[in-house]
Amino acid sequence: MFRNVLISGVGAYNPGKEVKNETIINHFRKYQLDEHVTNLLDKLGRDIRKQADDSESMIGMGVKASKEALKEAKLRAEDIDMIISATDTPQYLMPSCALMIRNELKASNATSVFDLNNNCVGMISAIDVASRYLKTDKKFKRALIVGSLHVSPFAKEDDMITYSIVGDGAAAVILESKEEEIERGLLATQMFTDDNYNDTIRFPECGLHNIVDDNLKGYDRKMQWKPFDFSFLSDKWSELVVTLLDENEYKPEHVSHYFMSQFSKDDIKVTLEKLGNNYEQATFIADKYGYTGSASPIMALNERLKKEKFKDEELIVFCSVAAGYTMQALSYKW
Amino acid sequence: MFRNVLISGVGAYNPGKEVKNETIINHFRKYQLDEHVTNLLDKLGRDIRKQADDSESMIGMGVKASKEALKEAKLRAEDIDMIISATDTPQYLMPSCALMIRNELKASNATSVFDLNNNCVGMISAIDVASRYLKTDKKFKRALIVGSLHVSPFAKEDDMITYSIVGDGAAAVILESKEEEIERGLLATQMFTDDNYNDTIRFPECGLHNIVDDNLKGYDRKMQWKPFDFSFLSDKWSELVVTLLDENEYKPEHVSHYFMSQFSKDDIKVTLEKLGNNYEQATFIADKYGYTGSASPIMALNERLKKEKFKDEELIVFCSVAAGYTMQALSYKW
Repeated sequence: MFRNVLISGVGAYNPGKEVKNETIINHFRKYQLDEHVTNLLDKLGRDIRKQADDSESMIGMGVKASKEALKEAKLRAEDIDMIISATDTPQYLMPSCALMIRNELKASNATSVFDLNNNCVGMISAIDVASRYLKTDKKFKRALIVGSLHVSPFAKEDDMITYSIVGDGAAAVILESKEEEIERGLLATQMFTDDNYNDTIRFPECGLHNIVDDNLKGYDRKMQWKPFDFSFLSDKWSELVVTLLDENEYKPEHVSHYFMSQFSKDDIKVTLEKLGNNYEQATFIADKYGYTGSASPIMALNERLKKEKFKDEELIVFCSVAAGYTMQALSYKW
Repeated sequence: MFRNVLISGVGAYNPGKEVKNETIINHFRKYQLDEHVTNLLDKLGRDIRKQADDSESMIGMGVKASKEALKEAKLRAEDIDMIISATDTPQYLMPSCALMIRNELKASNATSVFDLNNNCVGMISAIDVASRYLKTDKKFKRALIVGSLHVSPFAKEDDMITYSIVGDGAAAVILESKEEEIERGLLATQMFTDDNYNDTIRFPECGLHNIVDDNLKGYDRKMQWKPFDFSFLSDKWSELVVTLLDENEYKPEHVSHYFMSQFSKDDIKVTLEKLGNNYEQATFIADKYGYTGSASPIMALNERLKKEKFKDEELIVFCSVAAGYTMQALSYKW
């Protein structure tokens, strides 16, 4: 018998407010970067990005995505034992956002709630963490992982990358443990870290302890992004995926679908080529929602499941990269 | 054979700058709260609190504590597979503080790095998370958990509780997996959450998405603490500890020592009385360092180990509470 960890429901929420490429390109005209940004948006694959309005919050968006995931799983909030919120834009650092989400969902049996931050691989890391509890401890049967990003307020108006690519939104996934005769569900994880890029992205730029300094401006409390060459991405991602699959004696040719970081369409294409797979095996959604960081691979899964379910035994891979950088990939068998 | 998770090294760092009770009491004279604060400091057990100076950072303090833990464990930074930073005052939200600590330590084999925030139970939660990896995945042999608090900048000058009780500082612990004939090391965990207190503590008070608003003051970006009755603490803690111990068929009489939240001396006393233990079985250190939140139970462990080691088979309990609130307890057998 295997104690499998299965995805029993996925949900997402995207705010109504749309910002089109045209608006972004016009905005960068005053910096004489309009041509530059046009090329960037083409390479990264952007068209529309969604943004939270003043009435919306990271916790509110996370709750909406969670309710959809619960509905998909045919579960009530009271069925959840553990909630992990995985974001780098937490509405509060005290209390945990997971506790705030528990409160709004009335998930009164969730004894374990905490926040995990691994930037853009946050939901993948949190799924992995939750699965260890579901596999090792019978007190935990069902975990809710929420990735909610409210990142647009932190993009500097003169920063071509962050200002043009990010989107606000949330995704949620429910994991459930099940004793079964065959091994399936979450199979393995692989991580890789090279911290030599740790100074390329900093948020808040001034450091958290300086946000109380009235001599600084709101601008200094936003995100700093120093342009850097990340052309190594496809090599490192494909190495990571090959090592991951090898743990269960699979090869890229066995993979049915990829849910990658939604940062760059181009890098997904090149990675899949290097793996011997093709681009149609990935779901890309950042063209209509913008880059939603930690939430983005699960938001892509949600989009795909709405169109078409997976068949039994289909193998999928989640893979992303976080600031600094650290990478993580997960394999899952339906 | 048991795959045990053992503590192989502990370290701590406390900054040099000391703030004495006298200074705090004088400060609150202008608010006519000097008598009130004198009683509070007596009940909570404060004398001195340590504070970071301008040259110190949460990452720097965490690195110092980690180096001490490595030395205690007779390990090199390269021996570490996983780093978790557990704090509610992260220097950055991007990249993860764990990645920054990895960089400073040159822990070049730590493939897995991420941050966990569960406020004042953060290190206990992170120890529990790391132990699941060490128990389930042979890729992970040694994990470093770092709790570093740089909280003094966020205490409001007119808030009697936070301004008078907190201290900056860091603790670190190294966990190691080992196949052994007898079961020991980390035994079990219990958590309990009641989110009805979620609005009592909020940091940043304005919500993170509003820290960029230049119409707000630094004061609004600090910690909000609404006084509330937490006299339930000793009842809830003792219930949690009894349930925890019961998982391995132990009772409070079998416990040799407690490492509790260092928030309140009085609440530790009452809890231990209710458990049928006595106060001498707890290590209290907040009188000389201030309240260091997530780091505080491990800082207490470090203090105790410096004075006296535990003998084989001695049973210890870690127990704390986080904003909102959520509680966690861990049992450990030497």
